Amino acid sequence: MTDTTTALAAADKGLENSLERLFEFLRIPSISTDAAYKSDCEKAAHWVVTELTSLGFAAEVRPTPGRPMVVAHFTPKAMTAKTPHVLFYGHYDVQPVDPVELWHSPPFEPVRKKDDDGAERLYGRGAADDKGQLMTFVEAARAWITATGSLPIKATFLIEGEEESGSPSLIPFLKENKAELSCAAAFVCDSNMWDEKTPAITTRLRGLVHEEITITGPRIDLHSGMYGGAAMNPIRVLTKILAALHDRNGKVTIPGFYDGVKPLPAAIRKQWQSLKFSEKKFMNDVGLSVPAGEKGKSVLEQIWARPTAEVNGIWGGYTGAGAKTVLPSKAHAKLTFRLVGQQKPEKILKAVQKFIKDLLPKDCKVEFSGNGGGAPASEISGDNVYIKKSAAALKAEFNRAAVLMGSGGSIPIVRNFKDILGMDSVLVGFGLNDDAIHSPNEKYNLSSFQKGIRSWVRIMGALAE
Amino acid sequence: MTDTTTALAAADKGLENSLERLFEFLRIPSISTDAAYKSDCEKAAHWVVTELTSLGFAAEVRPTPGRPMVVAHFTPKAMTAKTPHVLFYGHYDVQPVDPVELWHSPPFEPVRKKDDDGAERLYGRGAADDKGQLMTFVEAARAWITATGSLPIKATFLIEGEEESGSPSLIPFLKENKAELSCAAAFVCDSNMWDEKTPAITTRLRGLVHEEITITGPRIDLHSGMYGGAAMNPIRVLTKILAALHDRNGKVTIPGFYDGVKPLPAAIRKQWQSLKFSEKKFMNDVGLSVPAGEKGKSVLEQIWARPTAEVNGIWGGYTGAGAKTVLPSKAHAKLTFRLVGQQKPEKILKAVQKFIKDLLPKDCKVEFSGNGGGAPASEISGDNVYIKKSAAALKAEFNRAAVLMGSGGSIPIVRNFKDILGMDSVLVGFGLNDDAIHSPNEKYNLSSFQKGIRSWVRIMGALAE
Repeated sequence: MTDTTTALAAADKGLENSLERLFEFLRIPSISTDAAYKSDCEKAAHWVVTELTSLGFAAEVRPTPGRPMVVAHFTPKAMTAKTPHVLFYGHYDVQPVDPVELWHSPPFEPVRKKDDDGAERLYGRGAADDKGQLMTFVEAARAWITATGSLPIKATFLIEGEEESGSPSLIPFLKENKAELSCAAAFVCDSNMWDEKTPAITTRLRGLVHEEITITGPRIDLHSGMYGGAAMNPIRVLTKILAALHDRNGKVTIPGFYDGVKPLPAAIRKQWQSLKFSEKKFMNDVGLSVPAGEKGKSVLEQIWARPTAEVNGIWGGYTGAGAKTVLPSKAHAKLTFRLVGQQKPEKILKAVQKFIKDLLPKDCKVEFSGNGGGAPASEISGDNVYIKKSAAALKAEFNRAAVLMGSGGSIPIVRNFKDILGMDSVLVGFGLNDDAIHSPNEKYNLSSFQKGIRSWVRIMGALAE
Repeated sequence: MTDTTTALAAADKGLENSLERLFEFLRIPSISTDAAYKSDCEKAAHWVVTELTSLGFAAEVRPTPGRPMVVAHFTPKAMTAKTPHVLFYGHYDVQPVDPVELWHSPPFEPVRKKDDDGAERLYGRGAADDKGQLMTFVEAARAWITATGSLPIKATFLIEGEEESGSPSLIPFLKENKAELSCAAAFVCDSNMWDEKTPAITTRLRGLVHEEITITGPRIDLHSGMYGGAAMNPIRVLTKILAALHDRNGKVTIPGFYDGVKPLPAAIRKQWQSLKFSEKKFMNDVGLSVPAGEKGKSVLEQIWARPTAEVNGIWGGYTGAGAKTVLPSKAHAKLTFRLVGQQKPEKILKAVQKFIKDLLPKDCKVEFSGNGGGAPASEISGDNVYIKKSAAALKAEFNRAAVLMGSGGSIPIVRNFKDILGMDSVLVGFGLNDDAIHSPNEKYNLSSFQKGIRSWVRIMGALAE
């Protein structure tokens, strides 16, 4: 028996205990975007530190101006000059839960359920994004330590608490702790498998920048009878502006928006075509049939290789029960922009603000209240040695080659790891497209959790070879 | 001393007690648009009945499928064949209070305050719309009864509880109680003075119809990274539709919307020009400078003689603190349309629904959840004998001629009184443009309340002559 085989057995034997720990973690409502949950975020950070300390890590909660970081180091007993030092990254913060009335069980009371298709799933906010995922490498480390008394590699765990709110403290933290956190490579566990039987490594990520706008018309709310027809309604102004963001072909109309976006290389288009991705199923799964992005682009290109402008929230006027004939003073919207290629977040934000100001009628004001953060897109070469070792380990676990895919989501940390710490990131995750992350009834398949732990056991072993 | 003079003295002597009663009434949060306040509406109705009963009225709370009506009759001691029987109308229900954080004092804890300009004002939800106003004729009746032991006229008081929610029970109620409620004329106290020194009778009212729409795109909320670019965002669809409601000249674009709208007659335009209305002040008072309605029309024409399409509320996606990268399943809006001339509410609703459906992309659904109610516009001739008598009484009280004006607001009851009960309505009210009805910090000037009571004392006396 190799050490990896022994560790795999320990992982299997400890699965029920691993699930209990995950559920304990999921019960902490560590929502980072809402200040009301600040102390829960701190509680989650301390929970992770306690777990890692018990495994023999030198683990600490590190304060930031926002939510704290967890940093933990493990130095193996049999350390040689060849033993690699790698970093593992996840985030303990979770998305808000609204609309909470659509959850079948309370979001912070996780349940394990055998569904009608026979699959067991773990339901709760953060089950997949990202507590369930980060616990796969934590529990893999536990399996190694249980089986062999140590890890086969030198490991640093960095567990963030602001991933869902734009990571405002991340860049200063990486800069301040550059020597401590710089490793040979980073492993990030916050992405999906290709499907439930096929593992994947994500090598292409879109960037993200967000903005919040408030448009003010009259200085007070008005009666729509008294003033309707004479006073400018800020909701009318807001809808005119937002409606102008896309042309009839789904293209974003903001001047300069596509600067730095290159056409998809033919080789990559060919590789993606070979994936036999069913656009029909992808759309039908969520009740849609017509891709809404730029006309003439495939769905994979729309979500992996093209930028977007989305309104994530809009509100203004009376939104309670019944009717109210108000002409409101203010109207609001939250926007995000997914970025690709060389699009620069700060340049996009400026272009967005100018676009909005240019469409603003006299008498209306606009305020911008986004946090100004954001991250450009990232691409990692498929020839990277850590990607190769990980792909081999995943193939051994799943008996299928890992797909090297793109992702429409944004993990800004990947770019920051490269820019600040000079290390590449390997994105290995076990989520599935139907996990409903950011939605009611978020779930993580039991198989994702179990095979996720086993995959990390194998990857840790492979890295030491 | 005439009876009117005696009654005026009684009104002045009783003013402090009148204010105490008004404040008691204002403390009842009788919001009709929100089911949570149903029992408060019932409490308000019973409060009115108790007051009127104590004055010698035969008063009753009358149930409806919604909020109850109050009906009260007073037959004078010295009744002759010439004694007119007239109806007085007001409403005890009030608007919702949000945004409640903008109120300087709690909306249902009324306060009397001497402001920096030396004027005393009564602050609270319903102070002007319509509890303060309806209490002017209730207290005028009290003054007559105190002074003379009776009223000089036969009076029926109809106090409604659904005026702020489209009066769904009103038409059936008027039909069922046609014989009991049909009078020589109706006096409606729910309108404004021309300015704080100049009384007014409103002879022109816009109609109103409302609709609520929900647009559904994907069947669940989605992650904007995973699906952004491929999945249709219902907020995008909603903003495209709402942005299309008006052209660049402020004209409503819904086909057939202006059917039944006639150009303003030259004589009326001339009369309105003679009012020396300051468009600049009207707009500046609310922080605006440019009239937003149809280009080329005066502000008075925009608010008194032209129809509107307004979005009173919009919401969808994430509207809490911070950012959330959600691509929502649903987006909502509340719309109202102010009507003039011969515009028909049911035809407008159909045209609105068709307009929206025609702009809806494949994959999106729309639901309409307005209550289907509404009322067309109304006009009453200035030659009406009750208007003439009221105008003379108002002139005696204010030493200024009453302006015969239009109103942008909607009082559907006027149309219903004419259509169902065959009676004209005289709209005499003592509100001011800065009363902030439907807004935070609603107020009623003490002078409006006092001179309102005195004006009704005079009108009641004039009607008996």
